[in-house]
Amino acid sequence: METSMTDHWERFQELNRKISGYEEAVNLLSWDLRTGAPKKGMDTRSETLGMLSTEAFKLQTSPEMGKLLDELSKPELQELLSDLDRRMVHEARKQYELNQSVPAERFQEYTVLAAKSESMWEDAKKDNDFTGFEPFLTAIVAFKQEFIDYWGVKDTRYDTLLDMYEPDMTVKELDQVFDRLRARLVPLAQKIEESSHKPESGFLNQLFDKSQQEKFGLFILEQMGYDFEAGRLDESVHPFATGLNTGDVRITTHYLQDEVTSAVFSSLHEGGHALYEQNVAKELERTPLAGGTSMGIHESQSRLWENMIGRSRSFWKRYFRDLQQHFPEQFAQVDEHSFYLAVNRVENSLIRIEADELTYNLHIIIRYEMEKMLFNEGLEVKDLPEVWNEKYKEYLGIMPPNDSLGVLQDVHWSGGDFGYFASYSLGNMYAAQFMNTMRSEIPDMDALIEDGNLIPIKKWLTDKVYRYGKSETPAEIILRVTGEPLNPDYLAEYLENKYKEIYQLS
Amino acid sequence: METSMTDHWERFQELNRKISGYEEAVNLLSWDLRTGAPKKGMDTRSETLGMLSTEAFKLQTSPEMGKLLDELSKPELQELLSDLDRRMVHEARKQYELNQSVPAERFQEYTVLAAKSESMWEDAKKDNDFTGFEPFLTAIVAFKQEFIDYWGVKDTRYDTLLDMYEPDMTVKELDQVFDRLRARLVPLAQKIEESSHKPESGFLNQLFDKSQQEKFGLFILEQMGYDFEAGRLDESVHPFATGLNTGDVRITTHYLQDEVTSAVFSSLHEGGHALYEQNVAKELERTPLAGGTSMGIHESQSRLWENMIGRSRSFWKRYFRDLQQHFPEQFAQVDEHSFYLAVNRVENSLIRIEADELTYNLHIIIRYEMEKMLFNEGLEVKDLPEVWNEKYKEYLGIMPPNDSLGVLQDVHWSGGDFGYFASYSLGNMYAAQFMNTMRSEIPDMDALIEDGNLIPIKKWLTDKVYRYGKSETPAEIILRVTGEPLNPDYLAEYLENKYKEIYQLS
Repeated sequence: METSMTDHWERFQELNRKISGYEEAVNLLSWDLRTGAPKKGMDTRSETLGMLSTEAFKLQTSPEMGKLLDELSKPELQELLSDLDRRMVHEARKQYELNQSVPAERFQEYTVLAAKSESMWEDAKKDNDFTGFEPFLTAIVAFKQEFIDYWGVKDTRYDTLLDMYEPDMTVKELDQVFDRLRARLVPLAQKIEESSHKPESGFLNQLFDKSQQEKFGLFILEQMGYDFEAGRLDESVHPFATGLNTGDVRITTHYLQDEVTSAVFSSLHEGGHALYEQNVAKELERTPLAGGTSMGIHESQSRLWENMIGRSRSFWKRYFRDLQQHFPEQFAQVDEHSFYLAVNRVENSLIRIEADELTYNLHIIIRYEMEKMLFNEGLEVKDLPEVWNEKYKEYLGIMPPNDSLGVLQDVHWSGGDFGYFASYSLGNMYAAQFMNTMRSEIPDMDALIEDGNLIPIKKWLTDKVYRYGKSETPAEIILRVTGEPLNPDYLAEYLENKYKEIYQLS
Repeated sequence: METSMTDHWERFQELNRKISGYEEAVNLLSWDLRTGAPKKGMDTRSETLGMLSTEAFKLQTSPEMGKLLDELSKPELQELLSDLDRRMVHEARKQYELNQSVPAERFQEYTVLAAKSESMWEDAKKDNDFTGFEPFLTAIVAFKQEFIDYWGVKDTRYDTLLDMYEPDMTVKELDQVFDRLRARLVPLAQKIEESSHKPESGFLNQLFDKSQQEKFGLFILEQMGYDFEAGRLDESVHPFATGLNTGDVRITTHYLQDEVTSAVFSSLHEGGHALYEQNVAKELERTPLAGGTSMGIHESQSRLWENMIGRSRSFWKRYFRDLQQHFPEQFAQVDEHSFYLAVNRVENSLIRIEADELTYNLHIIIRYEMEKMLFNEGLEVKDLPEVWNEKYKEYLGIMPPNDSLGVLQDVHWSGGDFGYFASYSLGNMYAAQFMNTMRSEIPDMDALIEDGNLIPIKKWLTDKVYRYGKSETPAEIILRVTGEPLNPDYLAEYLENKYKEIYQLS
């Protein structure tokens, strides 16, 4: 590299490290708030969080960053950069342009509104009061419509929002993918509904000592290859994973006294997110390419570990005896196969976060279709409850008795996170597609799982997905790893096979 | 206030809040490192800590801060400020001038050296190798000598260092105070050494379940009035207290399996520090006057709670039965008076941090005298071990068998903290003087303690000391509260009375 090139590059990396430093601090301050910070310090803490986030934002959108990106984007300098370095510039430029495009005062107003709207949503959900919440949600949607113009309209207005969470994903592609998925899942869910074979699951609800639950969770995380020297497990109301840096990726879980699987599957889920972040290549740390490449790929890892490994027959063939050892009385009369069936029961239910592996996708498709209607087809906020209820009737055969159990159930919209929901089902589809390839490349996978040898799975995922961080887009990763673009048939097939057997469908 | 005044003042407060925000983040990141951060994240974490500290330092020494302080120090503006506001300006100005005076590159070099020196000290202590450590310590002393010139020489060169930890404290005053103290404590320690009454203390060393120790510690902290909604108790190798903000003051302790009092007294000690920080007036939060006024006053609070309350006869008259309930087997044969005697045994020992209430001060006086010799009287670093050993022989009647148990025992000098040690004994003297006044204003204090009613003590200290934060100097506080300047006789008298009885001295 020439001298001026080296200077630009070094300064660029220095700014990136500083931005990452702020992000690490913000993430730790937030983690701490959710895992046990004393409540009287919360107001001051919120100010500190706001200040540090603002500093990171200022650096990302600083004139100096703009100038560096201009310089580093010049063809004669691009030529001197490695592929990876060019990606870094590209990613930083994308963030810079997005952040730059919104007038600072509008963004500030939006932030204030979003915070208020989230707290109004909490009340509205509690009081079953969509009407009270409606003006806030309307204002949030209007802001997002305005921001779409600043950010630039892609194929459709809603495409711009999708791209925020899943780079390069389009309405056109998702429509096709979700259509194909829905066409297979709706009839499958109906058949299951009609089946006379319903797994027994009452034994999951007994009293389970918390410290024994914790021990079992730690054991399972260790089995997955979660590195406790680069992370820790804590408790919080809602489980989450947070990556402070590659060497510090923390997860939390939540223990229910009267239900044993909630903490187990949330540990597998957050553990999947954490494995991804712990195994991003060290050279990407503190660069714009650190962390997972998209919400969808991230969810693919949490769901692969939670569901495709964690709810598999092989998994419980191996690990049910460990669970039994932790809870000998509770499971004295239960065998591994009954347990496997119990954790795979399907129910058409109202609440997304309590949904099983199959119907979960229908909950997501409903939200995706409604978001599209809001941003592309002129659906008004006031009509959301009606549309919601119709779609639940149509896809899941059930009707929410009120809005709290319907359109008000999720926090996402209140905070402006339109475009996010699709990630969850994308995650399921990516996961099934990865699994299909993994099975052909590790033919004895079920035997490995039954042996309690999960490390080859972690290693395969690290080699194929984790280590790349953001250096490839979701589409590039899925194509490189599986040899074809996103294909929803793998998920449909996986679910059909699994449930045909469990529910003895024809 | 006039408009420009208001603008200056508001911007000044804004900068202070931002500096406090950085400090809160730095303190949380450090707390986290010491209470369980995963080790693979430590290198990156250190970078982040360095970055955030630098940002705080930059703000404190920024040209904008300099200009604001100039403006706010003008007589016509000072007139418009309240007393408290003027103190804020004064305190910020003091920090600004100190930080400004050292050339940035020299400070940077010093920081690097100090970090290296601390790690060299660790090795030297382990290997009993003063000679290997000597060049680093010599370089640290040379840096401090250079800094004294930047900071400005007060009465003597060492006065400048003392002032860093105990504002306005002088060699002249400390010499007098320590002379008077030593003159009474050395003979007292000798009499005790010669006494035939030695309290039995073997029962303190048994096996003590950690979770029972924790429960008892939490109970005692609650009794002191430590607010668990504004703090939390964790574990770390070395106990400490850290104030993130008034509503979040955390403490840690360390549990020994085979000794029960270590965790109890460290909880009382750190709890004392924390009570101080939790009860600084809310209006001082995020200003230059937040937190304790000096290390000496801070130590007075930890030691008052640990020793003067926590090792008193009344305290164990009340709380021994609770301790017994937590450890019924271990203390089946022990009564409260034997326990009281056991936690007050005196021994001329080599190690400061293991010393009793009495000889602790002699350990400090030795260090104070040696620091003075180093900075004011030309003592060379190479001669430290010899002087150290002579003084231990003279004041404590014992001779360190090697430097690890002698001159190498403390971390302070390796990191350049010369002038700090005096705070510990100042804390003891302030505490005894506060206690003397408190006893005259709360005449039934012993009865209150025996009743388990410690809250009036906390309230008195809050009213008299805690709420003032840094808005008064140590000398102002001690004079206002007790009606006289620092007087070492209160500590001497307290110790003489206490040990005369325990050791049945003539």
